[in-house]
Amino acid sequence: MSLYQHSVVQMSSMLRNLDGCLDKAIAFAQAKEFSADDFVGFRLAPDMRPLSYQVQVACDIAKFAGARLAGVEAPSNPDTETTMAELKARIASTLEFLKSVEERAVDGGADREVRLSFLPGMGIKGADYLRQMAIPNFYFHVTTAYALLRSAGVGVGKRDYITELALYPVTD
Amino acid sequence: MSLYQHSVVQMSSMLRNLDGCLDKAIAFAQAKEFSADDFVGFRLAPDMRPLSYQVQVACDIAKFAGARLAGVEAPSNPDTETTMAELKARIASTLEFLKSVEERAVDGGADREVRLSFLPGMGIKGADYLRQMAIPNFYFHVTTAYALLRSAGVGVGKRDYITELALYPVTD
Repeated sequence: MSLYQHSVVQMSSMLRNLDGCLDKAIAFAQAKEFSADDFVGFRLAPDMRPLSYQVQVACDIAKFAGARLAGVEAPSNPDTETTMAELKARIASTLEFLKSVEERAVDGGADREVRLSFLPGMGIKGADYLRQMAIPNFYFHVTTAYALLRSAGVGVGKRDYITELALYPVTD
Repeated sequence: MSLYQHSVVQMSSMLRNLDGCLDKAIAFAQAKEFSADDFVGFRLAPDMRPLSYQVQVACDIAKFAGARLAGVEAPSNPDTETTMAELKARIASTLEFLKSVEERAVDGGADREVRLSFLPGMGIKGADYLRQMAIPNFYFHVTTAYALLRSAGVGVGKRDYITELALYPVTD
Protein backbone atom coordinates (compact mmCIF):
# COMPACT_ATOMS: atom_id res chain seq x y z
CA MET A 1 0.00 0.00 0.00
CA SER A 2 1.17 3.49 -0.81
CA LEU A 3 0.36 6.69 1.02
CA TYR A 4 0.44 8.47 -2.34
CA GLN A 5 -2.15 6.11 -3.85
CA HIS A 6 -4.44 6.52 -0.82
CA SER A 7 -4.18 10.29 -0.70
CA VAL A 8 -3.25 12.09 -3.92
CA VAL A 9 -4.36 9.44 -6.44
CA GLN A 10 -7.60 8.33 -4.76
CA MET A 11 -8.72 11.78 -3.62
CA SER A 12 -8.05 13.21 -7.10
CA SER A 13 -10.21 10.46 -8.56
CA MET A 14 -13.03 11.25 -6.14
CA LEU A 15 -12.77 15.01 -6.78
CA ARG A 16 -13.17 14.35 -10.50
CA ASN A 17 -16.28 12.32 -9.67
CA LEU A 18 -17.58 15.16 -7.49
CA ASP A 19 -16.99 17.54 -10.40
CA GLY A 20 -19.09 15.19 -12.54
CA CYS A 21 -21.90 15.35 -9.95
CA LEU A 22 -21.79 19.17 -10.14
CA ASP A 23 -22.10 18.89 -13.93
CA LYS A 24 -25.19 16.73 -13.49
CA ALA A 25 -26.64 19.31 -11.09
CA ILE A 26 -26.01 22.07 -13.65
CA ALA A 27 -27.72 20.05 -16.40
CA PHE A 28 -30.64 19.30 -14.03
CA ALA A 29 -31.10 23.02 -13.31
CA GLN A 30 -31.00 23.86 -17.02
CA ALA A 31 -33.64 21.23 -17.79
CA LYS A 32 -35.84 22.51 -14.94
CA GLU A 33 -35.13 26.15 -15.85
CA PHE A 34 -33.72 27.44 -12.59
CA SER A 35 -30.29 28.79 -11.76
CA ALA A 36 -27.81 26.02 -10.96
CA ASP A 37 -26.15 28.45 -8.55
CA ASP A 38 -29.12 27.96 -6.22
CA PHE A 39 -27.50 24.63 -5.38
CA VAL A 40 -24.48 26.40 -3.86
CA GLY A 41 -26.40 27.38 -0.71
CA PHE A 42 -28.53 24.25 -0.51
CA ARG A 43 -28.30 22.19 2.71
CA LEU A 44 -29.26 18.63 3.59
CA ALA A 45 -30.60 19.84 6.96
CA PRO A 46 -31.01 23.34 8.43
CA ASP A 47 -28.05 22.82 10.80
CA MET A 48 -25.77 21.25 8.21
CA ARG A 49 -23.43 23.25 6.00
CA PRO A 50 -24.31 24.12 2.38
CA LEU A 51 -22.96 22.55 -0.81
CA SER A 52 -20.29 25.26 -1.15
CA TYR A 53 -18.78 24.25 2.21
CA GLN A 54 -18.90 20.53 1.42
CA VAL A 55 -16.96 21.08 -1.81
CA GLN A 56 -14.52 23.55 -0.25
CA VAL A 57 -13.71 21.21 2.65
CA ALA A 58 -13.39 18.14 0.42
CA CYS A 59 -10.89 20.13 -1.68
CA ASP A 60 -9.04 21.33 1.42
CA ILE A 61 -8.73 17.86 2.92
CA ALA A 62 -7.27 16.49 -0.34
CA LYS A 63 -4.92 19.49 -0.62
CA PHE A 64 -3.73 19.27 2.97
CA ALA A 65 -3.39 15.48 2.90
CA GLY A 66 -0.99 15.72 -0.04
CA ALA A 67 0.87 18.73 1.36
CA ARG A 68 1.19 17.48 4.94
CA LEU A 69 2.32 13.99 3.96
CA ALA A 70 4.87 15.46 1.52
CA GLY A 71 5.98 18.14 3.97
CA VAL A 72 5.30 21.00 1.56
CA GLU A 73 3.24 24.17 1.89
CA ALA A 74 -0.36 24.02 0.67
CA PRO A 75 -1.73 26.93 -1.36
CA SER A 76 -4.24 29.18 0.43
CA ASN A 77 -7.91 29.22 -0.61
CA PRO A 78 -10.13 31.95 0.86
CA ASP A 79 -13.45 30.02 0.45
CA THR A 80 -15.18 32.75 -1.52
CA GLU A 81 -16.97 30.52 -4.05
CA THR A 82 -20.62 31.49 -4.65
CA THR A 83 -21.33 29.89 -8.05
CA MET A 84 -21.17 26.39 -9.46
CA ALA A 85 -18.53 27.57 -11.92
CA GLU A 86 -16.40 28.77 -9.02
CA LEU A 87 -16.84 25.46 -7.16
CA LYS A 88 -15.74 23.63 -10.31
CA ALA A 89 -12.73 25.95 -10.56
CA ARG A 90 -11.88 25.20 -6.91
CA ILE A 91 -11.85 21.49 -7.71
CA ALA A 92 -9.74 22.10 -10.83
CA SER A 93 -7.15 24.14 -8.92
CA THR A 94 -6.99 21.48 -6.20
CA LEU A 95 -6.39 18.80 -8.84
CA GLU A 96 -3.62 20.98 -10.34
CA PHE A 97 -1.94 21.35 -6.96
CA LEU A 98 -2.18 17.61 -6.29
CA LYS A 99 -0.44 16.94 -9.62
CA SER A 100 2.50 19.01 -8.36
CA VAL A 101 2.94 16.96 -5.17
CA GLU A 102 5.78 14.46 -5.53
CA GLU A 103 4.94 10.79 -5.08
CA ARG A 104 8.21 10.00 -3.33
CA ALA A 105 7.75 12.84 -0.82
CA VAL A 106 4.22 11.69 0.05
CA ASP A 107 5.27 8.05 0.38
CA GLY A 108 8.00 9.18 2.78
CA GLY A 109 5.47 10.86 5.06
CA ALA A 110 4.28 7.92 7.22
CA ASP A 111 6.16 9.12 10.32
CA ARG A 112 6.12 12.82 9.48
CA GLU A 113 4.63 14.83 12.34
CA VAL A 114 1.39 16.56 11.39
CA ARG A 115 0.21 19.54 13.47
CA LEU A 116 -3.39 20.75 13.33
CA SER A 117 -4.29 24.27 14.41
CA PHE A 118 -7.48 23.11 16.16
CA LEU A 119 -5.51 20.57 18.24
CA PRO A 120 -2.82 22.75 19.87
CA GLY A 121 -0.01 20.99 21.70
CA MET A 122 -0.69 17.73 19.86
CA GLY A 123 0.87 15.92 16.95
CA ILE A 124 -0.14 12.91 14.85
CA LYS A 125 1.98 10.80 12.53
CA GLY A 126 1.31 11.13 8.81
CA ALA A 127 0.01 7.59 8.32
CA ASP A 128 -2.38 7.89 11.29
CA TYR A 129 -3.52 11.33 10.14
CA LEU A 130 -4.37 9.93 6.70
CA ARG A 131 -6.21 6.85 7.98
CA GLN A 132 -8.00 8.24 11.05
CA MET A 133 -8.74 11.80 9.97
CA ALA A 134 -8.13 12.78 6.35
CA ILE A 135 -9.79 9.78 4.65
CA PRO A 136 -12.92 9.59 6.89
CA ASN A 137 -13.39 13.36 6.69
CA PHE A 138 -12.80 13.50 2.96
CA TYR A 139 -15.45 10.88 2.22
CA PHE A 140 -17.80 12.49 4.74
CA HIS A 141 -17.88 15.74 2.75
CA VAL A 142 -17.89 14.14 -0.72
CA THR A 143 -20.79 11.88 0.32
CA THR A 144 -22.68 14.77 1.92
CA ALA A 145 -22.34 16.80 -1.30
CA TYR A 146 -23.59 13.79 -3.27
CA ALA A 147 -26.52 13.14 -0.89
CA LEU A 148 -27.44 16.81 -0.90
CA LEU A 149 -27.67 16.89 -4.72
CA ARG A 150 -29.49 13.58 -4.85
CA SER A 151 -32.02 14.60 -2.23
CA ALA A 152 -32.67 17.72 -4.36
CA GLY A 153 -33.60 15.50 -7.31
CA VAL A 154 -30.35 15.37 -9.28
CA GLY A 155 -30.00 11.94 -10.92
CA VAL A 156 -26.67 10.93 -9.43
CA GLY A 157 -26.01 7.28 -8.57
CA LYS A 158 -23.26 5.03 -7.24
CA ARG A 159 -21.64 5.03 -10.69
CA ASP A 160 -21.11 8.76 -10.40
CA TYR A 161 -19.61 8.35 -6.92
CA ILE A 162 -17.16 5.60 -7.91
CA THR A 163 -15.82 5.54 -11.47
CA GLU A 164 -12.30 4.10 -11.50
CA LEU A 165 -11.68 0.43 -10.75
CA ALA A 166 -8.50 -1.41 -11.72
CA LEU A 167 -10.41 -4.42 -13.03
CA TYR A 168 -8.84 -7.03 -15.29
CA PRO A 169 -10.39 -9.94 -17.20
CA VAL A 170 -10.32 -13.42 -15.72
CA THR A 171 -11.05 -16.58 -17.66
CA ASP A 172 -12.04 -19.33 -15.22
CA MET B 1 0.79 1.52 5.65
CA SER B 2 -0.98 -1.70 6.47
CA LEU B 3 -3.96 -3.23 4.71
CA TYR B 4 -5.12 -4.53 8.10
CA GLN B 5 -5.06 -1.05 9.65
CA HIS B 6 -7.00 0.42 6.72
CA SER B 7 -9.61 -2.32 6.64
CA VAL B 8 -10.23 -4.25 9.86
CA VAL B 9 -8.94 -1.68 12.38
CA GLN B 10 -10.34 1.47 10.79
CA MET B 11 -13.67 0.02 9.74
CA SER B 12 -14.16 -1.50 13.21
CA SER B 13 -13.55 1.93 14.71
CA MET B 14 -16.10 3.53 12.39
CA LEU B 15 -18.68 0.79 13.08
CA ARG B 16 -18.33 1.47 16.81
CA ASN B 17 -18.94 5.16 16.04
CA LEU B 18 -21.99 4.24 13.95
CA ASP B 19 -23.27 2.17 16.87
CA GLY B 20 -22.86 5.27 19.05
CA CYS B 21 -24.95 7.27 16.56
CA LEU B 22 -27.70 4.63 16.79
CA ASP B 23 -27.57 5.00 20.60
CA LYS B 24 -28.06 8.75 20.22
CA ALA B 25 -31.02 8.12 17.92
CA ILE B 26 -32.56 5.76 20.48
CA ALA B 27 -32.12 8.34 23.26
CA PHE B 28 -33.60 11.02 20.98
CA ALA B 29 -36.69 8.89 20.33
CA GLN B 30 -37.12 8.20 24.05
CA ALA B 31 -36.93 11.92 24.86
CA LYS B 32 -39.45 12.74 22.11
CA GLU B 33 -41.63 9.75 23.05
CA PHE B 34 -41.75 7.90 19.76
CA SER B 35 -40.49 4.44 18.85
CA ALA B 36 -36.79 4.47 17.93
CA ASP B 37 -37.55 1.66 15.48
CA ASP B 38 -39.27 4.21 13.26
CA PHE B 39 -35.74 5.27 12.32
CA VAL B 40 -35.05 1.88 10.71
CA GLY B 41 -37.18 2.69 7.66
CA PHE B 42 -36.29 6.37 7.47
CA ARG B 43 -34.73 7.63 4.21
CA LEU B 44 -32.77 10.74 3.31
CA ALA B 45 -34.67 10.99 0.02
CA PRO B 46 -37.57 8.95 -1.39
CA ASP B 47 -35.30 7.15 -3.87
CA MET B 48 -32.51 6.48 -1.37
CA ARG B 49 -32.37 3.36 0.79
CA PRO B 50 -33.47 3.39 4.45
CA LEU B 51 -31.29 3.37 7.55
CA SER B 52 -31.49 -0.44 7.85
CA TYR B 53 -29.85 -0.82 4.43
CA GLN B 54 -27.14 1.76 5.17
CA VAL B 55 -26.15 -0.09 8.35
CA GLN B 56 -26.40 -3.54 6.73
CA VAL B 57 -24.22 -2.53 3.79
CA ALA B 58 -21.65 -0.74 5.95
CA CYS B 59 -21.37 -3.95 7.99
CA ASP B 60 -21.13 -6.10 4.85
CA ILE B 61 -18.41 -3.97 3.29
CA ALA B 62 -16.30 -4.18 6.47
CA LYS B 63 -16.94 -7.94 6.73
CA PHE B 64 -16.09 -8.61 3.08
CA ALA B 65 -13.06 -6.32 3.11
CA GLY B 66 -11.53 -8.30 5.96
CA ALA B 67 -12.55 -11.69 4.54
CA ARG B 68 -11.53 -11.04 0.93
CA LEU B 69 -8.16 -9.55 1.83
CA ALA B 70 -7.46 -12.44 4.21
CA GLY B 71 -8.76 -15.04 1.76
CA VAL B 72 -11.28 -16.48 4.21
CA GLU B 73 -15.01 -17.08 4.00
CA ALA B 74 -17.28 -14.34 5.35
CA PRO B 75 -20.32 -15.31 7.47
CA SER B 76 -23.69 -14.93 5.78
CA ASN B 77 -26.15 -12.25 6.95
CA PRO B 78 -29.72 -12.39 5.58
CA ASP B 79 -30.49 -8.65 6.07
CA THR B 80 -33.62 -9.23 8.13
CA GLU B 81 -33.08 -6.45 10.72
CA THR B 82 -36.22 -4.41 11.45
CA THR B 83 -35.41 -2.86 14.84
CA MET B 84 -32.66 -0.65 16.21
CA ALA B 85 -31.69 -3.46 18.60
CA GLU B 86 -31.25 -5.79 15.62
CA LEU B 87 -29.15 -3.21 13.76
CA LYS B 88 -26.94 -2.84 16.83
CA ALA B 89 -26.65 -6.65 17.02
CA ARG B 90 -25.64 -6.72 13.33
CA ILE B 91 -22.84 -4.25 14.07
CA ALA B 92 -21.78 -6.28 17.13
CA SER B 93 -21.60 -9.54 15.15
CA THR B 94 -19.61 -7.82 12.40
CA LEU B 95 -17.15 -6.52 14.99
CA GLU B 96 -16.86 -10.04 16.41
CA PHE B 97 -16.09 -11.49 12.99
CA LEU B 98 -13.52 -8.79 12.28
CA LYS B 99 -11.75 -9.66 15.53
CA SER B 100 -11.34 -13.22 14.22
CA VAL B 101 -9.63 -12.14 10.98
CA GLU B 102 -5.86 -12.55 11.19
CA GLU B 103 -3.72 -9.47 10.73
CA ARG B 104 -1.01 -11.33 8.85
CA ALA B 105 -3.50 -12.85 6.40
CA VAL B 106 -5.05 -9.45 5.65
CA ASP B 107 -1.66 -7.79 5.22
CA GLY B 108 -0.74 -10.52 2.76
CA GLY B 109 -3.76 -9.75 0.57
CA ALA B 110 -2.45 -6.88 -1.58
CA ASP B 111 -2.19 -9.01 -4.72
CA ARG B 112 -4.93 -11.48 -3.83
CA GLU B 113 -7.50 -11.69 -6.61
CA VAL B 114 -10.93 -10.47 -5.55
CA ARG B 115 -13.99 -11.55 -7.54
CA LEU B 116 -17.30 -9.70 -7.26
CA SER B 117 -20.56 -11.37 -8.25
CA PHE B 118 -21.89 -8.21 -9.92
CA LEU B 119 -18.77 -7.94 -12.10
CA PRO B 120 -18.63 -11.36 -13.78
CA GLY B 121 -15.49 -12.23 -15.73
CA MET B 122 -13.46 -9.56 -13.92
CA GLY B 123 -10.98 -9.55 -11.06
CA ILE B 124 -9.37 -6.82 -8.98
CA LYS B 125 -6.31 -7.01 -6.78
CA GLY B 126 -6.88 -6.80 -3.02
CA ALA B 127 -5.11 -3.46 -2.56
CA ASP B 128 -7.04 -1.85 -5.44
CA TYR B 129 -10.31 -3.33 -4.19
CA LEU B 130 -9.73 -1.82 -0.76
CA ARG B 131 -8.73 1.64 -2.02
CA GLN B 132 -11.06 2.07 -4.98
CA MET B 133 -14.14 0.22 -3.84
CA ALA B 134 -14.35 -0.94 -0.21
CA ILE B 135 -13.18 2.27 1.47
CA PRO B 136 -15.22 4.75 -0.65
CA ASN B 137 -18.32 2.55 -0.39
CA PHE B 138 -17.91 1.98 3.32
CA TYR B 139 -17.71 5.69 4.11
CA PHE B 140 -20.57 6.38 1.70
CA HIS B 141 -22.96 4.23 3.75
CA VAL B 142 -21.66 5.27 7.18
CA THR B 143 -21.97 8.95 6.21
CA THR B 144 -25.43 8.43 4.71
CA ALA B 145 -26.60 6.76 7.94
CA TYR B 146 -25.14 9.69 9.92
CA ALA B 147 -26.71 12.32 7.62
CA LEU B 148 -30.06 10.54 7.72
CA LEU B 149 -30.13 10.59 11.54
CA ARG B 150 -28.90 14.16 11.70
CA SER B 151 -31.45 15.41 9.16
CA ALA B 152 -34.11 13.76 11.37
CA GLY B 153 -33.00 15.89 14.31
CA VAL B 154 -30.64 13.55 16.18
CA GLY B 155 -27.83 15.57 17.75
CA VAL B 156 -24.89 13.79 16.12
CA GLY B 157 -21.77 15.77 15.20
CA LYS B 158 -18.31 15.26 13.76
CA ARG B 159 -17.10 14.02 17.15
CA ASP B 160 -19.52 11.11 16.89
CA TYR B 161 -18.33 10.35 13.36
CA ILE B 162 -14.62 10.37 14.23
CA THR B 163 -13.56 9.36 17.73
CA GLU B 164 -10.12 7.70 17.62
CA LEU B 165 -7.01 9.73 16.80
CA ALA B 166 -3.47 8.59 17.63
CA LEU B 167 -2.49 12.01 18.97
CA TYR B 168 0.60 12.57 21.12
CA PRO B 169 1.74 15.65 23.04
CA VAL B 170 4.33 17.97 21.50
CA THR B 171 6.24 20.60 23.44
CA ASP B 172 7.51 23.23 20.99
